[in-house]
This record gives sequence, structure tokens and C-alpha cells, in this order.
Amino acid sequence: MKPIELLRKLDAEAKLLEHIGAALGWDQETYMPSGAIDERADQLAYVETLAHEKATAPEIGRLLDELGSTEAEPSGPGSLPTIDRAYLRVMRRKYDQATKLPAELVSEMARATSLSQAAWVDARKHNDFKAFAPHLSRMLEYNKKVAACLDPSKRPYDVLLDRFEEGGSEEQVASIFGPLRVELVALLDRIRGKPQIDDSFLRRRCPAAAQAEASAYFMRALSYDEKRGRLDTTAHPFTTTLGESDVRITTRYVEDFFPSSLFSTIHESGHALYEMGIDPAPEYRRTSLAEASSMAVHESQSRLWENTVGRSLGFWLQHLPALRQIIAPAVDGVGLDEFYRAINKVEPSLIRTEADEVTYGLHVILRFELEGRMLSGDLSVDDLPAAWNEGMRRLLGVAPKNDAEGCLQDIHWPMGSFGYFPSYALGNLYGAQWWDAMKAQGLDPKAAVELGDLGSILSWLRSNVHRSGSMYKPGELVEKVTGAPLDPSHFVRYLNDKYAGVYGL
Amino acid sequence: MKPIELLRKLDAEAKLLEHIGAALGWDQETYMPSGAIDERADQLAYVETLAHEKATAPEIGRLLDELGSTEAEPSGPGSLPTIDRAYLRVMRRKYDQATKLPAELVSEMARATSLSQAAWVDARKHNDFKAFAPHLSRMLEYNKKVAACLDPSKRPYDVLLDRFEEGGSEEQVASIFGPLRVELVALLDRIRGKPQIDDSFLRRRCPAAAQAEASAYFMRALSYDEKRGRLDTTAHPFTTTLGESDVRITTRYVEDFFPSSLFSTIHESGHALYEMGIDPAPEYRRTSLAEASSMAVHESQSRLWENTVGRSLGFWLQHLPALRQIIAPAVDGVGLDEFYRAINKVEPSLIRTEADEVTYGLHVILRFELEGRMLSGDLSVDDLPAAWNEGMRRLLGVAPKNDAEGCLQDIHWPMGSFGYFPSYALGNLYGAQWWDAMKAQGLDPKAAVELGDLGSILSWLRSNVHRSGSMYKPGELVEKVTGAPLDPSHFVRYLNDKYAGVYGL
Repeated sequence: MKPIELLRKLDAEAKLLEHIGAALGWDQETYMPSGAIDERADQLAYVETLAHEKATAPEIGRLLDELGSTEAEPSGPGSLPTIDRAYLRVMRRKYDQATKLPAELVSEMARATSLSQAAWVDARKHNDFKAFAPHLSRMLEYNKKVAACLDPSKRPYDVLLDRFEEGGSEEQVASIFGPLRVELVALLDRIRGKPQIDDSFLRRRCPAAAQAEASAYFMRALSYDEKRGRLDTTAHPFTTTLGESDVRITTRYVEDFFPSSLFSTIHESGHALYEMGIDPAPEYRRTSLAEASSMAVHESQSRLWENTVGRSLGFWLQHLPALRQIIAPAVDGVGLDEFYRAINKVEPSLIRTEADEVTYGLHVILRFELEGRMLSGDLSVDDLPAAWNEGMRRLLGVAPKNDAEGCLQDIHWPMGSFGYFPSYALGNLYGAQWWDAMKAQGLDPKAAVELGDLGSILSWLRSNVHRSGSMYKPGELVEKVTGAPLDPSHFVRYLNDKYAGVYGL
Repeated sequence: MKPIELLRKLDAEAKLLEHIGAALGWDQETYMPSGAIDERADQLAYVETLAHEKATAPEIGRLLDELGSTEAEPSGPGSLPTIDRAYLRVMRRKYDQATKLPAELVSEMARATSLSQAAWVDARKHNDFKAFAPHLSRMLEYNKKVAACLDPSKRPYDVLLDRFEEGGSEEQVASIFGPLRVELVALLDRIRGKPQIDDSFLRRRCPAAAQAEASAYFMRALSYDEKRGRLDTTAHPFTTTLGESDVRITTRYVEDFFPSSLFSTIHESGHALYEMGIDPAPEYRRTSLAEASSMAVHESQSRLWENTVGRSLGFWLQHLPALRQIIAPAVDGVGLDEFYRAINKVEPSLIRTEADEVTYGLHVILRFELEGRMLSGDLSVDDLPAAWNEGMRRLLGVAPKNDAEGCLQDIHWPMGSFGYFPSYALGNLYGAQWWDAMKAQGLDPKAAVELGDLGSILSWLRSNVHRSGSMYKPGELVEKVTGAPLDPSHFVRYLNDKYAGVYGL
């Protein structure tokens, strides 16, 4: 067996264990009886430990070292094909990230994280930031240590960000978020000057069974392959990959707010279509190359389907008649335009996960700024609540009444995750840039949506974004596909055009 | 760590992998999307191989050898508690069965079995026994080899039977089945002299949703712990153990025959109650001691609940009113006696799995006789169809029109399983003997059922049968609990009493 093949084989074994873990995790969230939780935790820990062992096997390190020298001479006689060189990049990165952290740090951090999360749940419940502050400090310290282990030559935030957005840096993200913030604040300001939309009909009662039927309808409309996945209900919607032919999604049915399941199903379907669309060729199959280019690119898929497609006028021109039938009487007497405006209502709010397309980015930008400042030492943990509240007023014009609906709302920092937040907003930017690239390449996605031809959009995304998995870093991918680096102007133009119509600006 | 504790730890690791395999298997049968089958097969094979490696680790052999000498001197100074000695018996037996077969034989046999099963599916479809005969011969040969590897000093059938019924022998089973056969044939003959029961109302349409509600009702009635298990639907009902606190059952809903789901749910609940009732003490927890005493004892639990309890007049005196409500109008206008007689209709038929309480044992006895004769060389494979048909006429008075509804009906022989069939009938005998032991020990189970007090029956079974897991061999268990060896007269008396009433004999 050639070294590269042996590497793929070892990688596939770790991947298989990851998929088994995903199956156990999916079951835990969907159907597992409550009394089984302790045993399931032991089973999951066992599988994860084994997967980690496989992924960090010294044999992989030796193969990477051996193959590494070849990588350096792409045109030499012993050179490897481009795809193999990309694979070595991906594997080297994963291996380093998994092996560079001392076991002691990993286990200390796991224990501290578990305590931090428990303290956060409590602090949020009792609106007591002070009780959580020492844990947050500890999480920051551990993240600095992690960054120092992974790459002491770089700034900590850059190292942490790179784990989710390969090749990204605080400076690059700031250069994108800066102009984006200005534009979002300006657009929000213009919307504020207009009469607010009445979306009260969205609160009409709609039974879970009807919502489930609607979810199934929209999954079919998006060409989600039901032979390779399924939809179930969970407390929090998610997408999980149990294998290249088993990508499951979940949703939840809120009986007095049907848009919740509607758009979460479309959102998760977007994630699943990405996973299902990765090249099944032997170089990808069951390897680490069959993963998303980045978290932000993943989010570009879910948000493109949820918002750019799913909240467009053309989409509902096509699908509102069917929805009317399926969830009757929930939208009886509601016209297309009224429906379209209601699902696109913009309203500054306190909670990120409930935010609309315009304000969502501002929530993320605030978190990006604050976590960067905390990591650089420019902002102390004790000053976080005040800085948060000031930021909310400045960006969104609203102020939390307490920290529970302020800086304690997200689980990310309590679980020690710094550098992840930007992905949420970058996803929207990638999405808008893909959309404009379709147009530049002769596909009119808006017309396709109006004609109910979602297939041509999916085909384009498959060929250009899905198929190559993690072969390209996100920055390389966007240049390759659109001919330019990531540029917020696509998203800004999209929002300005859309909301000019929605609010008559 | 003491050697016995180390042994438990190694055992628990193999057990955990078994449970993970059960979770993957359960998912495959219930919710897995069809396209995932190939990957799931690889995942299951991986987990099973790993579980086998753990269960056959040389370390276990060394520990057993080390501890074995202690076992021999139960009263010596270094002696072990009774429960530890029982554990060593169980582990030694498992370890020997898993390690005594040469790897080459195991893999050859796996390949041959897979071909045999495929040939059987085809032969059954085309009613072509001749095409399957060479595979059956091969399965017999492999089984003889297996028996020779496990214990060359014993007769092959005894070795094979012992795998499912520890300590059993062909001679012992024959001595039980002999008188049982005579009694069953005589009872059947008397029933034949009476007018047949009209059970046509059982074919009234009953929607799956109503049947599901009935299943849930009866699971609650039996005290099935819904925090430690759940019910789902599959093509063939089964019980599976994903952990000591996760024992799931399945059923299927036949809309024009509601008794199918009703009694299969009760049957599988009986299996699950056994698994859930095993002692959770540290000596048992997640070890091989937390397994059933034998397949037949397992079957005694499912059949006791399904038939002795679930098809009794007292049970329906208590529960028919509720069933009426739940599955209305399926049993509208049907009186208690009419219902009771219909669910106990006796009718000789060709297919074992559809047989009633009286004829079921005769199907099993025929298979026991034929597989014993084939293994001893007394019956050739080519002569099997004729011997089968002759046996059916002799025992049941019916004759298959073809081999598909004759000797090709069961999957057991095609999959190389010989010595398993007796467990099905022995289960009924154990069940009747437990029932009579309850009476002898002052509990009146019939009165308890009539009063809706199933809890006292469950308590008795837990204390006497469930709790000890595989601490006792089945022969030891029945002696310990009832004061006598397994004796078919309990079951015979039960049937004669019951059917005297049902048919007015």
C-alpha cells in the first residue's frame, strides 16, 4: 500500500468512529430513554477517546513527515497530484491540532469547561454574572494556552479563529466587519424611519403535524435526498453526519409560531445538502477531505437556502399555495405580499438567535469585538457586562435589562469557544458572494427560484462549493469560485435591494 | 486492582462495545435511511470485531487461569464468594466458546453462511429444496466441526444445544419432549372433536394509531419502565439491550389483525422485563453475569406474559374495557367470553410462527427430532422434505403443499443454527413451572391477574428469576426456585385445564 493510501485508511478508521459517535449522539437527542443518559455518556466517551487515539496515532505523524517532503516539490519527479497535496494539508492541520496540546492541558480544560458550563447555566438562571466571571477568566486563560501550544508565533485570537476559518485573521475579519457594521447600522436606521410590519398572523396556532408535513414538503422542494437522511424533532435543531450517505437533520415545532420549524428545516437542509454534495470519489470517501471548507462556508449554505432563497418573494410566489393547503387555516386570507413582508420583518432585539437578516450581523460583530478585546487584555472580564450593554445600544439601539438577556445569553464562551462567532456572519457574506457569482456566470438564481427551479442553484453550489470539500481553504475557495476575495459589498447590496422593497425605503 | 476486578473491567469494555453495536443495530432496523446500509454494515462489522477482540483478549485467559485454581477450593482460605465463582464459570464458558474456534473456521463458516442464507431465500421463493440442499449439508458439516472444536468428548448435538441451554443434552430434552408430544397430540385430538371457534372479528380493521395506543397501555400495565426503554415499529418485532438502562422493544401493526401487535408487544415486554430486572449490584453491572440464564429461560418470560397472563380470562376481565375504548370500534359488541375464546383458538397450521399455544410445541418437537437425526447421520439432507411432511401429518394432521411452507420455512438452519429450536418449547415449560412455584409459595397468580395486580407476579419473577442473571445454569435455577428439575407436567396441566374451559372438553 502506498503511503498516501495508508494515510487514507487510517483516516477512514478515525472517521468511521466519528460517525458511530454521531449515531450515538443523534439517538441521545432524539429517541433515547431518559434513564440511559449515564451509560450513553460512557459509550460516547469511549468512542470519542478511541477516535482521538486513531486520529493521533504516531503512524499518521510518520506518514505525514514522509509525504511532507514530496509536497514541497509539486513539479518534481516524485510529486503528488494537487488533490493529494490538499489532503496532506488537511491532515497535517488536523494532526497538529490534535497532537500539539499536552494531554494534561486537554484533561484540565475538559474539567474546567464542564464546571464553567454548569456555572453558566446557574448564573444565567439567577442573572448573576459575578458568579460566572471567574469561570470566564479561566476559559480565556485556557484558550490563550491552547493558542500558544498551536502556534506561539501568532496572535492568540488569530490562532483560535483559524481553527474554524482556516487562514483567517482578526485583522482580515475586522477589515470586513468594519464597513459591514457601518452599512448595517445605516440600513437599520432607514428601516426604523418606516412604519413597522404587522406579522401577528405568524402567531396563529398551527399543529405540529401540519408543520411536519410542511417540513417534508420543503425538504423535497430543496432536493434533500430522503434515502440518505431523515428529519426528526429535538429541543434544538441541528444537522449531523452519521456517514457520507446518512446526513440527518432535526427541527422543532412551536405550535404558536410556525415559521420556526419552517425556516429551521430549510436552514438545516442547507447544511445537509453541503455534506451530501461532497465528491464521493475515492480520494474523498470517508476521509477528512470530505469535510466542509470552513464553518463559515457551511453557514453560507444554510443561510443561502434559508434567507436568500427561502425568504424571497419568488420562493413564496411558487410555494405559498402549497403551504396554504398544508397548514390551513394558519395563513388563510394572508396575501403573498403580506406573507413575504411578515417573514422579513426587521426589529432590533436582544437575542442573537432570534434576530432577522439585517440585525443578525450586528449581534455577531459585537461578540467578535468583545472576544478579541478580552483575549488581547484590552477588556477585563469584570467590564464585559457594561461593554456589552454599551455595544448593544450603539449597534442596535436596544439595551438588555439584565445580563441573562445580555452577555450571558450564548453558550459559546462558557464552553470555552472563542473565535467561532465570526463564522455566523461570514456565512452570510460568502452566501451573497456565491449568489452574485451565479449571476456573473450566466445563471439567474432569482429567476430560477421564481420558476421553482431550485435544482439549477443546487447544481451550481454542488459543482462550485460542495464537491471539493476541504480541498481549498475558504479564502482560496472564494477566489477560485468568484475571482475575488471575500467582500462584504455583495451582502450589503443584497440587503439594501431587498429591504428597499420590503420597507419601501 | 484484584484479578477478579480486572476481569470485570475487561468484560465491561467488551459489553460496552456490544451495547454500541446494539444501538447501531436498533437504528438500522427502525430509523436509518435506506441509502446508509453499506456504511452501517461497515460500522457494525468494525464494532463487532472490536468487541470480539476485547472478549478474546489473552489477558482474560490469563486471569481465568489464575483465578481458576481458586474456584476449585470453594472452602479454602483463598476461596472466592459464590457469586464470583459463578462469574468465573460464565466467563470461562464465553471465553472458551469465543477462542476455541480457529479463525480460519470462523471466517470460512461466515462466508458459507452468507451464501447459504442467500440460497435459502431463493430456494424458498422458487420452492426448490434441491437448490438449497448442498448448503444445508455444508451448514451441518460446519456445525459438526464447531462441536468438535468446543468439546470433542461430547456428542455434537449436545455441544450445540449447550450453547443456548447450558447443561442441556439431547437425551434430557428428548425425555421431556417425549411425554409432552403425547399429551399435546392427545389434547389436540380432543379439541378437534369440538366445534371450532369463530374469531372472524379479530380481522376487523384497526388503525395503527389505535394499536399503538393499546401497546402503550399494556406496556404500562406490565410495569415496563419507559424511562429505561421504548417501543418502535419494525418489520419483525424484537427486544434489544443497548445498556442496563436501555432495553428497547419493537412491534408491528397489522391493520386487519390487531392481536398481532397486542401480543407481540406483551411478548417483547416480557423479554425486556427480564433484562431490566437483573441485579444492578457491582458484581453484575455491565458484566456477562448480567445476561439471561439461557435462551429458554428468556423465552419463559416472554411467553408467560404473552400467554399465561395475556391470554387468560382474568387479564381480559380487567383490561377488555380499556381495550374497547382504545381500539373502538374493533371489538364493539364482542363479549368477554367471545373475546377470550377467539384469542385462544387452536388450529393446526403449517407455519410455526403463527401457531397457537397447543400446537406450537409440536412444531418445535418436529424440528428438534429432525435436526438431531441430521446431525447424527440418521437422516440425510435429501430425505428431509419427506421426513418433515410425514412428521407434520403425524403430529399435527396437516401436510405442506410444498417445501416453502414445509422444511424451508425457518431461517435457523440456513443460518447455521442447530440446537436453538428446543429453547422455544422449553420456554413454555419453564414458564408453567414458575407459575406453579408461585402458587406453591403462597402467591395466587391467577387471582392477582384478575385483580389487576400484575406487580406481585413481576416482583416474584424479579426475585426468583430475573435478579440472578446467569449466575445459575438453567437446570440449577429451576431446581433452586421450584425444588425440582424441569418437568413438562406443569405445562401439560396448564394447557389441559385452560382448553377444557375454552373448548368445553
